[in-house]
Amino acid sequence: MKFIQADVLKQKPTDESKLGFGKIFTDYMFTMKYKVGQGWYDAQIEPHRPIAFDLATTVFHYAQGIFEGLKAFKNEKGEIRVFRPEENFKRMNRSAVRMCIPEIDEKLVLEGLFELLKIEKDWIPTSPGTALYIRPSIVATNVALGVHAGTEYLFFIILSPVGSYYAHGLAPTRLLVEDFYTRATVGGTGEAKCIANYAVSLRAGEEAAKKGFDQVLWLDANEKKYVEEVGSMNMFFVIDGEVITPMLTGSILPGITRKSCIELLKANGYKVSERKISIDEVIEAQAAGKLDEAFGTGTAAVISPVGMMEYKGRDYVVNNNEMGKITKWLYDTITGIQTGRLADTHNWVVKL
Amino acid sequence: MKFIQADVLKQKPTDESKLGFGKIFTDYMFTMKYKVGQGWYDAQIEPHRPIAFDLATTVFHYAQGIFEGLKAFKNEKGEIRVFRPEENFKRMNRSAVRMCIPEIDEKLVLEGLFELLKIEKDWIPTSPGTALYIRPSIVATNVALGVHAGTEYLFFIILSPVGSYYAHGLAPTRLLVEDFYTRATVGGTGEAKCIANYAVSLRAGEEAAKKGFDQVLWLDANEKKYVEEVGSMNMFFVIDGEVITPMLTGSILPGITRKSCIELLKANGYKVSERKISIDEVIEAQAAGKLDEAFGTGTAAVISPVGMMEYKGRDYVVNNNEMGKITKWLYDTITGIQTGRLADTHNWVVKL
Repeated sequence: MKFIQADVLKQKPTDESKLGFGKIFTDYMFTMKYKVGQGWYDAQIEPHRPIAFDLATTVFHYAQGIFEGLKAFKNEKGEIRVFRPEENFKRMNRSAVRMCIPEIDEKLVLEGLFELLKIEKDWIPTSPGTALYIRPSIVATNVALGVHAGTEYLFFIILSPVGSYYAHGLAPTRLLVEDFYTRATVGGTGEAKCIANYAVSLRAGEEAAKKGFDQVLWLDANEKKYVEEVGSMNMFFVIDGEVITPMLTGSILPGITRKSCIELLKANGYKVSERKISIDEVIEAQAAGKLDEAFGTGTAAVISPVGMMEYKGRDYVVNNNEMGKITKWLYDTITGIQTGRLADTHNWVVKL
Repeated sequence: MKFIQADVLKQKPTDESKLGFGKIFTDYMFTMKYKVGQGWYDAQIEPHRPIAFDLATTVFHYAQGIFEGLKAFKNEKGEIRVFRPEENFKRMNRSAVRMCIPEIDEKLVLEGLFELLKIEKDWIPTSPGTALYIRPSIVATNVALGVHAGTEYLFFIILSPVGSYYAHGLAPTRLLVEDFYTRATVGGTGEAKCIANYAVSLRAGEEAAKKGFDQVLWLDANEKKYVEEVGSMNMFFVIDGEVITPMLTGSILPGITRKSCIELLKANGYKVSERKISIDEVIEAQAAGKLDEAFGTGTAAVISPVGMMEYKGRDYVVNNNEMGKITKWLYDTITGIQTGRLADTHNWVVKL
């Protein structure tokens, strides 16, 4: 694989408690180009530096783009540990099909990622709760204003050392149950990790943030009845001992942390249901004292306890605004497997 | 306004019959930047050339962007004529609010556009059916991976001499009525001219194109019952003498050509209804011989007759696959006003 050396390397962050999320980027990135008739070409590792785009480029006008998010960790032995990377590139190819983007060679980009990580290993933070966040993306790069799928694309992987996704760390989050705005419908792009889904969610997110909420809890677009997801996280509820997460209906992102949680819970004897769950069911359970826990799952936040939900102007406190037992067990287990503190019982970690 | 001279000017197209749509761009563009705390700044006219973007820029990851489309024409006297430009910048500000993008000073960007057009007047084609297509856009330009509205933006106007939007010109189009994929829902971003809406529509459009259709006719996302729009055009049906266009429910783009058609039709004594219209009503009218005409309206295509619609595997021919009377009258009237062939009875044209 071609490697282009950077002239100067950046100063690495000295205080890992101040990393934030997605603000600092490493020295190198992996890139690869695509042209109709030629396929993917020019896979290389090059300095992470600005690239020139004509302002008539398709992605600026029609948002044809997809991405992924995953994390790498480093243990005391200096071993680089990547959590389920093959799942991300599989999902990326499913997103690609939905968004008329050419599929990638999963093996090739995995190799590219691993090589990039080896080069950038000194950028991987090691404090508890930190990681090297990996962002693979594809955007349409041809210059044209007709509304059509692109004829040229850029695949890239950029890296960012990160701390907690939420500024308040693991403290329970406050969710606003959104009953006006919608994120996605069946027949739409909700299950694809496409950049458009995030644009659509911005306004509701900003309005919720102004009111002091961390995230929006989306309901289904048609009936505004069933819980969907949080946009950056899938949702789980523990009701009367049953762990429930909304089933994948086509409008919900099939999260890899979601999938890992389901697998872990089942392997450890928990009753897990993937099914439709209405917001009324959640609220009734809360009223009856049966809503034991609620949490979100996602690569960025890993496992995030929910402490409070507001729906139609009323507040519903979950588990005394404290992190629940299953939530904590999942957080400890997944981060333990990721960092190597616990045995990788499911063969999820790729070690470099 | 600051002006940066280009070193070399491009060769202008010599054959106006081969312009296509959005493939060729002029020498200059208008740009303006935004930073939180500073507002919009650095409005200038500069050479249309590639601009450097970090690959962690918000628009590449979360598709935060909006745009507009309008046209300028030139008559024999060399007069530049712009069709309803103030309507576009009004709508752009409405889109901005929906997408958490800072609003622009409509007067300032109009002035910027007019100055740009004066500089680029030799690029305006004059053959029938051609125009200078104007594409104002705003994209989020700050470098960050958290899912939040951007803190920096780029506004730009680029120009492209264009011919017909459809390769087949004014020949009646073939529409595929889409009953699986969805474009937008009430509570979503359908009424904003945001780049995300176009990404969401790509897959259905490509599948329709493969089957030989020009466009997808979208139905409402909830019931898949009511006609919405075509993605690049609003829809009109003439049934038993009544001109019907879907009412603006929140998921349909409020087209400026749509609005102009309604105003023209009303001023000329036609019965026009903005109301919900189900696909069943359209099909029943066709079966009863009462679907006199169907057409789409949009800046790019102006007025486009519909000759055939396929719905659930059955074909429905409209008006013998010929352009109808009202369709032709609207096309002639709007293009007549735009180019100056007809009197500008509604004061729609800005002359430079």
